[in-house]
Formats: sequence, C-alpha cells, structure tokens
Amino acid sequence: MDDLLRLADTDFSSRLILGTGGATSLLALERAIVASGAQLVTVALRRVDVTTPSLMEVLERCGVRLLPNTAGCYTAADAVRTARLGREAFGTDWVKLEVIGDERTLLPDAVELIKAAAQLVADGFVVLPYTTDDPVLARRLADLGCAAVMPAGAPIGSGLGITNPHHLELLREAVTCPVILDAGIGTASDAALAMELGCDAVLLASAVTRAQDPTAMAAAMRHAVIAGRLAARAGRIPRLTHAQASTPGHPTW
Amino acid sequence: MDDLLRLADTDFSSRLILGTGGATSLLALERAIVASGAQLVTVALRRVDVTTPSLMEVLERCGVRLLPNTAGCYTAADAVRTARLGREAFGTDWVKLEVIGDERTLLPDAVELIKAAAQLVADGFVVLPYTTDDPVLARRLADLGCAAVMPAGAPIGSGLGITNPHHLELLREAVTCPVILDAGIGTASDAALAMELGCDAVLLASAVTRAQDPTAMAAAMRHAVIAGRLAARAGRIPRLTHAQASTPGHPTW
Amino acid sequence: MDDLLRLADTDFSSRLILGTGGATSLLALERAIVASGAQLVTVALRRVDVTTPSLMEVLERCGVRLLPNTAGCYTAADAVRTARLGREAFGTDWVKLEVIGDERTLLPDAVELIKAAAQLVADGFVVLPYTTDDPVLARRLADLGCAAVMPAGAPIGSGLGITNPHHLELLREAVTCPVILDAGIGTASDAALAMELGCDAVLLASAVTRAQDPTAMAAAMRHAVIAGRLAARAGRIPRLTHAQASTPGHPTW
Amino acid sequence: MDDLLRLADTDFSSRLILGTGGATSLLALERAIVASGAQLVTVALRRVDVTTPSLMEVLERCGVRLLPNTAGCYTAADAVRTARLGREAFGTDWVKLEVIGDERTLLPDAVELIKAAAQLVADGFVVLPYTTDDPVLARRLADLGCAAVMPAGAPIGSGLGITNPHHLELLREAVTCPVILDAGIGTASDAALAMELGCDAVLLASAVTRAQDPTAMAAAMRHAVIAGRLAARAGRIPRLTHAQASTPGHPTW
Repeated sequence: MDDLLRLADTDFSSRLILGTGGATSLLALERAIVASGAQLVTVALRRVDVTTPSLMEVLERCGVRLLPNTAGCYTAADAVRTARLGREAFGTDWVKLEVIGDERTLLPDAVELIKAAAQLVADGFVVLPYTTDDPVLARRLADLGCAAVMPAGAPIGSGLGITNPHHLELLREAVTCPVILDAGIGTASDAALAMELGCDAVLLASAVTRAQDPTAMAAAMRHAVIAGRLAARAGRIPRLTHAQASTPGHPTW
Repeated sequence: MDDLLRLADTDFSSRLILGTGGATSLLALERAIVASGAQLVTVALRRVDVTTPSLMEVLERCGVRLLPNTAGCYTAADAVRTARLGREAFGTDWVKLEVIGDERTLLPDAVELIKAAAQLVADGFVVLPYTTDDPVLARRLADLGCAAVMPAGAPIGSGLGITNPHHLELLREAVTCPVILDAGIGTASDAALAMELGCDAVLLASAVTRAQDPTAMAAAMRHAVIAGRLAARAGRIPRLTHAQASTPGHPTW
Repeated sequence: MDDLLRLADTDFSSRLILGTGGATSLLALERAIVASGAQLVTVALRRVDVTTPSLMEVLERCGVRLLPNTAGCYTAADAVRTARLGREAFGTDWVKLEVIGDERTLLPDAVELIKAAAQLVADGFVVLPYTTDDPVLARRLADLGCAAVMPAGAPIGSGLGITNPHHLELLREAVTCPVILDAGIGTASDAALAMELGCDAVLLASAVTRAQDPTAMAAAMRHAVIAGRLAARAGRIPRLTHAQASTPGHPTW
Repeated sequence: MDDLLRLADTDFSSRLILGTGGATSLLALERAIVASGAQLVTVALRRVDVTTPSLMEVLERCGVRLLPNTAGCYTAADAVRTARLGREAFGTDWVKLEVIGDERTLLPDAVELIKAAAQLVADGFVVLPYTTDDPVLARRLADLGCAAVMPAGAPIGSGLGITNPHHLELLREAVTCPVILDAGIGTASDAALAMELGCDAVLLASAVTRAQDPTAMAAAMRHAVIAGRLAARAGRIPRLTHAQASTPGHPTW
C-alpha cells in the first residue's frame, strides 16, 4: 500500500506511534507493541539508559524504531542537554522534544519549546516537538524546520480525547509538515477522530499501557488509526440538520 | 475468533450492517459491501421487488444475508402489511421495522412502532425495530420480544453522528438484547464511538454509499467497528481532569 | 414589557417555572421563589395535600400560581386519577402531567403518556406534559390539545443540562404550541441555552433547591432565562470557522 | 453590591467589557453600551485617534472608561509602539495588548506577546493581554505582572463560543489574577458559561455589534454575565449519570 507516513527521510506504513510510559511489564509492553502494529516507539530519555538492555531488546525484537523523548524537562537547556545525551547513547538524531511548563497539566511551555527546537534543529536533530493545539505556535515550529508538529489533544494521561477539535483543524491548515496527535487519547474513537481532523499520525501511551487489556486496546488503536485515515480520504458526507431519505422513486435498490 | 454477534438464532462475525439506500450503482454497492465485510444488508421493501434480480444477484454474490426493511411506512398497518409482503417475496421472516413519524426527521413514531412490533412478533417475525434513543421505549420493544433494538444516533442521512451519547448509554443499560446503532453515522469515529458506548453493532448506509469514495469509506467503517468493539472490551483508562505522568522514578522504561 | 408567555388563557411575564422538590425548608423555598421571579410553581400531588397549609401559604404569600404535577405516577390510570384528585383538592384544572417509565432515568413512558394526555384533555384539563425530546412524540401531544410540551433536557435531577440540543431544535420546529424545557438543568448557562434553542420557558427544581445557595442560584436562573430569551430574539451572529476582524480601514471606530 | 471586579486599582460593578469593532453606527454603539451596562469599552488604537472626537464623546456620555487596544499589531515592537502612542493620545496607561500571529485565526503569537507584555509592564502600563487558552502561557503573563489575562474562547468574531471549556478551567487554576474571557462569544449562554468556568469578566464585540438587534443582544449579555457570575458562586448541583427524584416520602412539599 502506498499511503505512507513520511517523517524526515523515512517512510512508515503504520500511522500509530506508541509510548512506553505506564507499561506494567516488559512482556505487556511487547505484546502491545506487536498488537498495535507500531513501527516507532518513544522512550523517555530520563527513564532509560543503555545500561537497561532489556527494553532495547524488546524494541529490537519487535523491529520498531526508537524515538527518544525529553519527557520531564522543564527548560530549553535541560531538554537540549537531554537530547544530546540521548543522541550519543542511542545513536539516533531523532528526538521527540518535550519542554514541560506545568506539573498539573504537563502542557508544553511555548517560549522554552521554541528555544529548544531552534537549538536542536541547528544541531542537526530531526525534531518532533510536543506542542499545544495553538496553530500560530505550530507554524513557528514548522518554520524553524521541525520534521512534524505534535499537538496535544488533552493533557498527557488524561484520556479526555480531543478537547478542541476546531483548534486541531486550524492547526492542520496552518502547517504543511506532518501533524501527529500527541497526548490525551483515551479510546479508539479519539484516535479515529484525530485522523479525520487531518492528523497524519497518532501517538499514545497511557491509553494502551494503562488499559485493563493493553493488548486488546493496542489492536483497537491500530484499527482506529486505519479507520480514521481511510475516512479522512474517502470524503465524508456533509452534516445535515434534517434527515435525507434514499432517493424517492429510485427504481432498483 | 469467538466474539460473535448473535441475532435471533444466527451468529455473525461482522458487527457492521449495511444499507443500500443512496448507492449510485450496483457496482459501487457491490464494492462497498465487499470492503465493509458486512454479512447482513438491509433493503427497502418499497423500493425493491423480486422482479429486480440484479440487486439480489449482487447480495448473493457477496454472500450476505438480506434484511428487508419497511422504510417509507408511516403507520403500523402499512409497516405490517409491507413486512408480510416482504416475507412472501423474499422468504425471510427477519424484518427491520421502520414506522416513520415525520418526513423532516424520519424519526420513528413511538406509538405506531410499538403497535407494529407487537403485531409482527405475534406473526412470528424476527423484529429489529428502528427506534429513538429513548431507553423506556427501547425496553418496551425488548419486552415485546424484539430480537434487538436499533436506536437512531441522529436523523437518517444527516451524518451528525451520535447526538446524545448519554441517552445511548442509558438505553444500553435498559435492555439485555442486542443494541444496534441505526442512523446518523457520518464517519468512522462515529461508528467506533457507538461501539464504545455499548452497542453490539452498527447499521449505516448513506455514510458509505454517499461518500465520495464509497469503497474506502466502507473499509474505514469495517475497521472502525472492530476498533470500537475491541476498545469497549479492553477497559479504557478513566478520564482525568489533570495530567498523569508516567510513574515517577520508574526504573526501567 | 409585552413579551409575555401565554399558557392556555393566561399570560406570564416570567418564563421561569420553579419546582419545589428538593427544597430543604419552607423558608429556603420561599426565598428561592422570590429571587427567581417565578409566577408558576409546580408541586407533586403525591407529596402534598390541602391539609398541608404551610406550603400553600408560602405560594400565596409569593403570589405565585400553583401547578400540580403527577410526579411518581407510572401508568396513565394512576396519573389520571392523581390529576383528578388534585383538581378537586386545589381547584385548578391545570396539571403538569408526568407518567414515568423508568426509575433510573425518570424518563416518561411514551405510550402511557399519550393515553393519559388524551384522557385529561378530554376531561377538560389544561395539560402540560413532561415528555422526551422526541419531536414526533411532541407533535402527537400537541395535536391532542396539550397546552404546551415539556421536553426533558436530561434526566430529572441530573444537572446534565441539554444533552441533545439538536433534538430540541427539531422538537421546536415540530410544534407551534409553547415548548418548556423541563428537567436536566444544572446551571445558568443551561437555562440560557434552552431559551436560545427556541424554548418559551424553563422549568427547574433541583438546580435551585439543591444548590449550595438556592437563593443566589434562583437569581442566576432569573437572569439566565431573560438573557436567553433576549438573545434568541436579537438575531445572533453566524458561527464562522475562521476569525473575522473588525472592518479593515474603518475610518472612525 | 460588593461583588466588584478589581482590575489594577479600579473596581467595576459590571463584569462585561464591550468592544466597538463592528458597530454599524455611533448611535447603535451608544445604545448597545447603555443596554450592556459596561463600564469599560475597548477601542482599537489603529482605528481611532483624538481627532475623532465623536467616538470619544459617545464614551464620555455613557460614562464608560476607555481601554485602548493594539488590534492589528503583528510584532512586539509594533504593539509596544502603538501602546505608547495611545498612552500619549488618550492619557491612560491601561492597554489591552494584542499581538496577532495569524490573519486567518487572529490568534495571538505567544513569543511576541510575552516580549511585548514584559516591555509594557516595565514601561508602567497596566497590561491586559489577549492570549490563547494555554494555562502555561497565561501563568507566564501573570508572572510578568499583567493585571489580568484574557484568553480567547474561540477566534475573534467567530461566534463559536468556548471551544475548550476544559482548558479554560485549567487556565483559571493556573493564575490568581483576574481572567477575562476575550473573543469567540456568540450568544448569551456562551457568556454565562465563561463566568461559570471561573472567568471574572467577559469581553465581547461582534456578538453584540453585529447581532441583528445589537441593543437587545447587549441587554442579553448583561443578564448573562450576571447569571453566570451568580451561578458560579451559588454552588451548582453535581452532574449525575442517572435521575434523582425528590426525596421519597418527603412529608410536606
């Protein structure tokens, strides 16, 4: 199938990206990764190191690419430093950039995020920044040379879904780079909706890792992202205020 | 896989039911049926007869079961008469019962619907009534012996999705028979949501037949229903007001 | 001011109707009635009688009209009998008709409701039926000769507001008699929204009587209903997907 | 009444702030100001000057305070320069700071907004910044010494209301200074909701000036803001999934 997601110079046939946070065991994680069909898995640099071979082995066994992230960083300086350490440790210049502004919401800090993104792009990183659903900020990040923008649908781990679908549509219009819904997904219909609103991919962790049955939810998410992508391209019917019957007098079916 | 939908005495592995209304050609319809994976297809008795062999041939070729419906009937008497004619013509005692109350909304008429359902159950039909999202009315229909209840998510053909998720949940609690979301679906996330809210299946027509690419939308709906079903059974994470980070200090991943 | 609510042959300048259920004391109730500006107050016939003079004295002192209701009745026969007893006891042929179908939702039973309404209209009552938000059922009630229809916004006491604004608009189109939003209101914006959606009045009880400060909430509801009514008639601006700046180059302000 | 809105060192009894953009005539504007009860009216510095005495006369006659704004500025430098010219021309150091980032959405640019706010606070202005609904950005503005924060409910002039109530609640928690809902209001229930979500005041222009009957809508908004404020303080009932009847067996009313 030729409907591929291109990030930087790499094509992915899966549009679902998985995070590892919240997984209750490596075995549960491995099963979820397999069921999700994900080809890209993000791992918090502050929670893992190369002396933790077991997680790396799981990712390798699943054949997925590692996307290090800077979760837990609250300043540009900290995020940049963490990203650089990650590059050395894991041999990848891809980074999911998180610069958190608030412990209660875990929403990004716009000012520090812009600073860190500019620095990391200049350093040659492929930067995938976690951002708010603000279309103006997203365009700034895209203009800096980020490889994608990753707006939050709702606070990390909240499971609230996409609290502002309208903003996500405005953000989609504002940039030409890939848009990856990141954070907030609670269930399958949220992931499908993200794709229908124009996202190119969906990243989620808790929705799968903390579900009662992570493997089943991972499979649900795989189907949901495919469903949403297909629907977004199929040209949905318009929303009507009133009913529309099948063509009256239609002769055959 | 053993997660089957049981209607009356028949098991279905697909939980997506397709309507034919709005299809622009038999070829488009056939492709959509195949892509949807549907095993049950509903056809308006007032718009088809056995002297229309072409549609019957399509359904036979697709290996799907025919579910006649009484679309266009405005009284119990008319619906009962139509159902009986359908039984003779098509040799099935299954009927999707529609008794419409309003041309603008195509919503059912509660009073006539109850009358027709009681009569058809007494006549030995397997009755699948199209109803509102009213849990009290749904329980009446279930208590009459209907094989399922089929609440509208929104007016037929409107594409508005599920305008009252809360009522759908109340309805789900009110009956033990299968609940099939019928009418209103516009896109894939609507279908996934219906399943997550506890529906056992989804019936739709316009969302697929009138989409710009019916085949792609049919495939989207197939994935969406699977996604929603899996998610409903996987035990989603709770909705939280604030963010929840991955376990702080978690040692390994 | 000449924007009056006409019910049967009576005009009201207030469009807020108060229920007494949930009030913690007669004093709290009296203060809430005064603050609400209500001119019509509904009382459950099964919970009050003429040997309860204190409540009657409060209503008289407030100068409000009593609207008996049949809360707690589960069949047409019970509701009709209760209404007749109320007429004798309180000397009014107005009745808020409730025929409940379900203890968990307290939603009306469509079939019994229609029966009771027909009987009471034939008996000469001014019938104000509590109904679902189903436009077809509402039109049946209006066609029977009910003086208004009173759709639920959400289950009684739930405080969920208007769970299906679209259905309320369809219902508003379906009848020409007054529409009174009944049940579900939680806060002031819900009441304003009901009026904006085309309701002629709002009935509520718990939202005021069970609020932490019933008097303040009663005042809030008074303002909210006025606000919603004014807004509904003022011709609101259209909803736009994008921003609209003030006229560019506008010379003066 | 002692429930005053305090901005900097000034108390206001009205919590509705009006903008003049979109008014079709000075007469229409004057009537709307009077009907709204507003005590603070914002005027775009780029669209008015002291050689336009007529508008100033209207504001004086209405007894309202002028709040100059920097609408139409796209950089911090431009906004700061405009604010300074306004201070000289109108003799007020209050300024509603707008630094726009996008012509289609008219949403603020976070980076330039922070720069401008810091500069204007340092210059001794009372700064009231128009911002997104991002709680992290709002806290930055508050920490800089802004006298309030003014989040958008939706794009300016869109009439979409509050597209992300959850974010508005998060923002409300994030700052202790006054929060003024700015932009997006379409109708009265939107304004009431803003207050219920914890805003201290509401600013709007188009919703009134472009309504079919601006005077009536201004009165609606006056009531709506009062309603929402009262409701926010009255302690609303909790939202329940199921119905709650009046206390069973309650003896008297």
